[in-house]
Order: sequence, then C-alpha cells, then structure tokens
Amino acid sequence: MLALEKALRDTAREVEGVLDKILAEESGHEARLFESMRYATLGGGKRFRPFLVAQSAALFSVSRSAALRAAAAVELVHCYSLVHDDLPAMDDDDLRRGQPTVHKEFDEATAILAGDALLTMAFEVLADRRTHENGDVRAELVGALAKASGAHGMVGGQMLDLAAETIELDMGGITRLQRLKTGALIAFSCEAGAILGRASAEPREALRGYAHDLGLTFQIADDLLDVEGTMEETGKAVGKDAAAGKATFVSILGVERAREQAKLLAKQAVQHLANFDQSADPLRAAASFVVERRS
Amino acid sequence: MLALEKALRDTAREVEGVLDKILAEESGHEARLFESMRYATLGGGKRFRPFLVAQSAALFSVSRSAALRAAAAVELVHCYSLVHDDLPAMDDDDLRRGQPTVHKEFDEATAILAGDALLTMAFEVLADRRTHENGDVRAELVGALAKASGAHGMVGGQMLDLAAETIELDMGGITRLQRLKTGALIAFSCEAGAILGRASAEPREALRGYAHDLGLTFQIADDLLDVEGTMEETGKAVGKDAAAGKATFVSILGVERAREQAKLLAKQAVQHLANFDQSADPLRAAASFVVERRS
Repeated sequence: MLALEKALRDTAREVEGVLDKILAEESGHEARLFESMRYATLGGGKRFRPFLVAQSAALFSVSRSAALRAAAAVELVHCYSLVHDDLPAMDDDDLRRGQPTVHKEFDEATAILAGDALLTMAFEVLADRRTHENGDVRAELVGALAKASGAHGMVGGQMLDLAAETIELDMGGITRLQRLKTGALIAFSCEAGAILGRASAEPREALRGYAHDLGLTFQIADDLLDVEGTMEETGKAVGKDAAAGKATFVSILGVERAREQAKLLAKQAVQHLANFDQSADPLRAAASFVVERRS
Repeated sequence: MLALEKALRDTAREVEGVLDKILAEESGHEARLFESMRYATLGGGKRFRPFLVAQSAALFSVSRSAALRAAAAVELVHCYSLVHDDLPAMDDDDLRRGQPTVHKEFDEATAILAGDALLTMAFEVLADRRTHENGDVRAELVGALAKASGAHGMVGGQMLDLAAETIELDMGGITRLQRLKTGALIAFSCEAGAILGRASAEPREALRGYAHDLGLTFQIADDLLDVEGTMEETGKAVGKDAAAGKATFVSILGVERAREQAKLLAKQAVQHLANFDQSADPLRAAASFVVERRS
C-alpha cells in the first residue's frame, strides 16, 4: 500500500508539471481565462486517472513523457467535467477539493469558458507529435477519448444523472449511468497505455475487463463516501445524493452489501490482470486502494 | 452571385445529411441530450464554414465525402459555441435563427451538456478513418481545430468579448478579439481543405491570407447588421452591442467607413487567391457575398 501511495504521489507530481507547462499563463484581457483554467486543474486531486494511464503505459514500455501527456489530457477532461458539473444549472456545488468551485471563485461565464477550453486542450495535447510520433496512434487516442467523454460516454452519463433526480433508476439503470458517467473515462485511462504501446488484442481486452470492474468499484466507493464520509475528508459536500432523492448503489444495496460488492468487484478486476507480470502490480494494488479510499 | 448561392445551398444540404447521420437519435433517458444536440445543429444556418471547407478542399481534389466530414466537424464546433454563448451567464439570448435558443427550448443544464457533447463529437468525427485514411492528416486536423477553437482561439475571443463590456477596446483590441472569436474558426475552415489535400506551403499561405481578410470582412459585416439589420432578417436580436456599450468596428469607424473597410478587405481577400485557377471562383465570390449579406 505504501508503494502504491508513493506511485500515486509520483505520478501526481509529474503530471502536475506537464499540466503546468500546458496551461502556461497568459497576459492580456483573456488572462482571467487561463487563471481559471489553472485554478480548475492545478494543485489538487489524487490524479487517479493519470496514474492509470501511466501504469497501463508502463505495461507496454511506453516512454514516460508520452504517457504523461496522455495522462494530462485525461486529467484536463476530468477537470473540465468537474467545472461544468459544479455549475448552478447542474449540481450547483460551492466546494471542490475544499476550495470554492470555479464559478464561485471567478464567475459563471468564466467557468463555462474554462471548461470548454480545458476540453478542447485535451484534444490538442493528444494530437501533438510530442505525444506520439505515429499519426494513427495520435488519432486513435483522440477518437477513443472523444467517445469516452462525449454523448455516448461521460456527457451522456451526466445527462442520465440529471434525469435520475426525477426518475427511479433500478440496479441496471444505475450501473449504466456509472458506466457512462465515470466508467468510460476510467476505461479510456487504462486503454490509453495500450494504444500508445500499440498493444495486441489480448492484453487490451484484459485491461478493458480490469477497467470495467475498477470503474464500478470506484463508483460504489464514491457512493459509500457520500453516505459515510465527512466534508473534511472528501473536500466536497456529502449526503447530496440522499438529499436529492437519487438512487445509488448504496440506496439500493444498503451499506453492507454495497461494501461487499465493491470488494468482490475489486478482486474480479485483479483477476483480469492474470497474464501480466509484476509490472501490473501497481494496477492490482490500485483496485484495493479504490475500495479503501476515504476521499 | 446565383452560382454562389446554389453552391452554398448545395453544401448546406449535403452537410445537413452528414450531420443528421452523425447525430443519430437515441432512445432511453439520455434521448433528451441527442434531441437538444440535433435542435442546436440541424435545420438552419447558412453553413458558411462548411462551404469554406468544401471549397478549399475542392482546390486540392479532396474527395467530397472527406471534405463534408471535416465541414461537419467545423459546424459542430460553431453550433456548440452558439449554444454556450447564448446561455444566461453569457450573452443571455432567447432567440437564434428565429427559434428559441437551446436553454429556452430545453433547459440550462441540457444546453451546457449539449454544447460539451457537440464539441467533443467534432474531434471524434475528425479522428475517424472515414475522414482520411492517413493518421497524420487526421491528427493534424484535430490539432488545428483544437487550436482554432480553444483558449488561444475562439474561447479566448469569447473571454475577450465578455471583458469588452467593461473595458474600452481600441481598433487593435477589436481586431484581435475578432481574429480569435470568429476569425480562427474561419481560418481553420479554409485550412482544413489544404490539410486534407496535403497541400504545399505556398497555397496554404495564400489561403491563410484569404481567410484572415475574409474573417475580418465577415465580422465588420456582422457589426453592420447589428446596427442596420432587423430581427426578421437576422433571426436574432439586433442592436445588442450598442445596448451593451461594446466597442465594435462600426462604433469606432462609423457605418460608412466600416462599409468601405469591409469592401476593401473583401477585395484584398480575393487578391490572395491570384495563383489559383477558376476552381477558386466560389471562394472569390464568397468574399463579395460576405460584404453584401443581409443575415
């Protein structure tokens, strides 16, 4: 567990450096846009998705610098989604990682534009030759990230999540919501390494299975935190799903069964990695980490 | 002029068909997202940017289907930007192309998500093999569109535009605002054909010069319409810049000099095309069209 925490911290530090360069400060009247983009992106977060990119890339001997650029792109998409999700017209959150959300610190218009610019920049980063010398690889990364983040992925999941305030979702509905809203980007994070490393079908399939189970584990743990966590631990408001009357894994399964389910899925995730050697150990450890996280 | 109008209409019809397929309707709880994306994109607009893509592609014998996919991607970005610009926190517009804006017809959250999904889809379309068989070309299209639409392009321009409500821009400031807010995407539209056709540096440079002058012409004409047009002609509210106390080309130059300037720039735009044969005639005609447009 200590080794994993070190690996997480190392990746977080490295990807922070890459993001800091990508989001170089600007002067002039649009400086505020860059400030808000930096505010939304730098200095916080576990960088769990970048970690998955870096670790999946390591399985295929991808250069660290290429992996970190793809990792930065995923994090840009993740951060944009948080900025837009926090908007008053969406989840209307005032706090994120213990700090005022972007529309609170700046204003709503700036938050909308910052999100738009972060999303756009993710694709610019992937399309750049510094990410990979082969154009097919770059285009594949772009296509896969777009699929994972768009209407058939994360944005579709957010739409479902809004609908969940008025419709009653069953277990199948919640699983589908999760697969789109958080699962798709987690799956891309694991796939990115395979794309960069031009991996064959078999390890790709294994990683896909791992990512699928990991994503579900992650969401159940998130739902548990929303019930059991404190604002001090999570850095954001808790108990929001119950207050909004939204069905979650925990509201349907109950705390105990949800926790059991998360443990089972984490074990199952690890089983998909059976054909990888010890280079996949950090990914194996990540599955336990996700079950046990407190923030 | 009649030939140009026919060419515009033809491209509009063809790109509508491509967009209609790309935005295939979905069922289920996120159907509303696809409905709003279709509402924002289909059935309206001059499709001027798609026309520029199609015509610049024709200069380099690019297949019509490839050109139309790139054209659709540009239009997706253009439509997303309108959806977000119309939001209450931004320009707060109720009408667009004579119809309720997306947040009026649906709701704010849906409008934010529809914009996000349209932007994401633009990159998915460009990264797809059906757009070009060569990965370097696809990645170059993605990178160029991202640059044109992001913080250093369109979104940066929108940020400047918001700032323009409180700061006094001079001629240089307004020119810069325009170059970012509308010029960058118009420039990409002309560049896309050259990228698809793997054109050499010289014709690319010529097209860049053309696009630069055309973009400025376009914006001055837009400012003139905001002063002289009617809501019936333009399908949107007019007189908004003056009401907001925003400096425009017209507020600085006056109507007469602004019109002269637009004509001069349109002529200058055409001069950049001197080394192209008659296949560039529609682009030449487009410059005059832009000066004379009433909507």
